[in-house]
Amino acid sequence: MYVILVYDVKTERVNKVNKYLRQYLYWRQNSVFEGEISKKTFNRLLTGLKRHLDLNADSVLIYTIPDKKRIDSILIGVEKGKIDRIV
Amino acid sequence: MYVILVYDVKTERVNKVNKYLRQYLYWRQNSVFEGEISKKTFNRLLTGLKRHLDLNADSVLIYTIPDKKRIDSILIGVEKGKIDRIV
Repeated sequence: MYVILVYDVKTERVNKVNKYLRQYLYWRQNSVFEGEISKKTFNRLLTGLKRHLDLNADSVLIYTIPDKKRIDSILIGVEKGKIDRIV
Repeated sequence: MYVILVYDVKTERVNKVNKYLRQYLYWRQNSVFEGEISKKTFNRLLTGLKRHLDLNADSVLIYTIPDKKRIDSILIGVEKGKIDRIV
């Protein structure tokens, strides 16, 4: 499955969350990560991610799409993240 | 086509960009908009959006997926945006 993850976490947790997510996904742009991941690994990601968040203050929105070939992406303006891989 | 749009614009342009995007898409969460849109309307959105941005400072990442039925989404933590429609 293909995952697009957008996070909004308090500044004090950004570095830790970034570091954690990089273990599983590619940093696409600012608060956006994406990548191909198995269902099993995705569940592990979720479990660990919750431990890095304050669930009363932070939010993470995750889209899952079974077939990444069907996703296109466009970037307008400044390239702020490191694109490890273009979808 | 289904569109997921994540923006990162300077504070002084956030309100204007939000207002503009709401004409075309649903506000999902913080800086994330999404919605079903025709190719023609999408191109109009892009043209107008660029006029609201400083292309040297702001960035907008847009994913397009032909079939929205294939997209699932999960929200962890705080619900910060108004969900007009669940995918």
